[in-house]
Amino acid sequence: MSLALDPTAQDLLFREARTANTFTDEPVTDEQIEAIYDLVKYGPTSMNQSPLRVTLVRSPEARQRLVNLMSDGNKEKTGKAPLVAILSADNEFHEELPTLFPHFEGAKGMFDGMGREARERQAGLNAALQAAYFIVGVRAAGLAAGPMTGADLEGIRKEFLDDDHTPLMVVNIGKPGENAWFPRSPRLAYDEVVTTV
Amino acid sequence: MSLALDPTAQDLLFREARTANTFTDEPVTDEQIEAIYDLVKYGPTSMNQSPLRVTLVRSPEARQRLVNLMSDGNKEKTGKAPLVAILSADNEFHEELPTLFPHFEGAKGMFDGMGREARERQAGLNAALQAAYFIVGVRAAGLAAGPMTGADLEGIRKEFLDDDHTPLMVVNIGKPGENAWFPRSPRLAYDEVVTTV
Repeated sequence: MSLALDPTAQDLLFREARTANTFTDEPVTDEQIEAIYDLVKYGPTSMNQSPLRVTLVRSPEARQRLVNLMSDGNKEKTGKAPLVAILSADNEFHEELPTLFPHFEGAKGMFDGMGREARERQAGLNAALQAAYFIVGVRAAGLAAGPMTGADLEGIRKEFLDDDHTPLMVVNIGKPGENAWFPRSPRLAYDEVVTTV
Repeated sequence: MSLALDPTAQDLLFREARTANTFTDEPVTDEQIEAIYDLVKYGPTSMNQSPLRVTLVRSPEARQRLVNLMSDGNKEKTGKAPLVAILSADNEFHEELPTLFPHFEGAKGMFDGMGREARERQAGLNAALQAAYFIVGVRAAGLAAGPMTGADLEGIRKEFLDDDHTPLMVVNIGKPGENAWFPRSPRLAYDEVVTTV
């Protein structure tokens, strides 16, 4: 059974793509991130909520503040990666729905009425979908992603975001360096994941 | 700025791919779903948690039970799609970590100690990442996905899953039929999503 996606693209995005732990010094430009966003913004979310927000940590001072909030095992690579991005969910995403979902006038009001906790769940799910599209997009740009949840996420919220934004993960981005990968860990077999009713 | 991913693949996965609302009668086979899984299983999750589980709803009797639990606007298409999948998060994913993350012996025990609520958060985030990889994989197979959260998800849990599994979404899968798409909704501009510090 062959896929419609050509094997080179399969390798680039999934089969040979790996979470990188070291990077070369080659910079990652804003133009590259813009090209990635311009591709992955089309990935679907519930009612086009599009709650993902991206904070590029570029200044050495901000980078150091972020490194201080990473788990010990993630500090060194986060300090050395050419670019580091904080991916977060905008819990007030519904403010944008008059633009994002124009054919349903009641969308913003519906989420207003739902209350913040329900919106946080919606934003969390849909921003996670978009985080995955973003990781795929980084790979589509010929770069390696190093997504990490090992961090003081509440500290990252206080240091870099605000109460309306919930950080999901931190992603190192760049060309893979020497010994960039651990050995690939096993995956579950099809029958362990997929059942039929 | 051009991406490493060729334009045909960009179109297939993101630019021309759309959430389908109608489908042809062409069946979607288990072999196709297996090929999709065999690609997207490589998408990264935290500590290789891999909590996504997929329930293929194939029997007419099960399909009817699922349709009954969908929001009104999703009933007809869920009834007619060639294949419908329930995507869920396994909150006891850590039982598999001795296989999935073999180089860290303490992984299962760490998540045992965390308690169920913390595991549910981990499973929710990582299964959502994998749900996005799955949607990309459906498109990689030359099929259209119709992901939906408009459903009685708690009812779906009771009817099709168990307490250890939290449903995230239902996905219609097939070749797009007539008038399959709504007009594409707008996306946020780069500057509305990405900030730099």
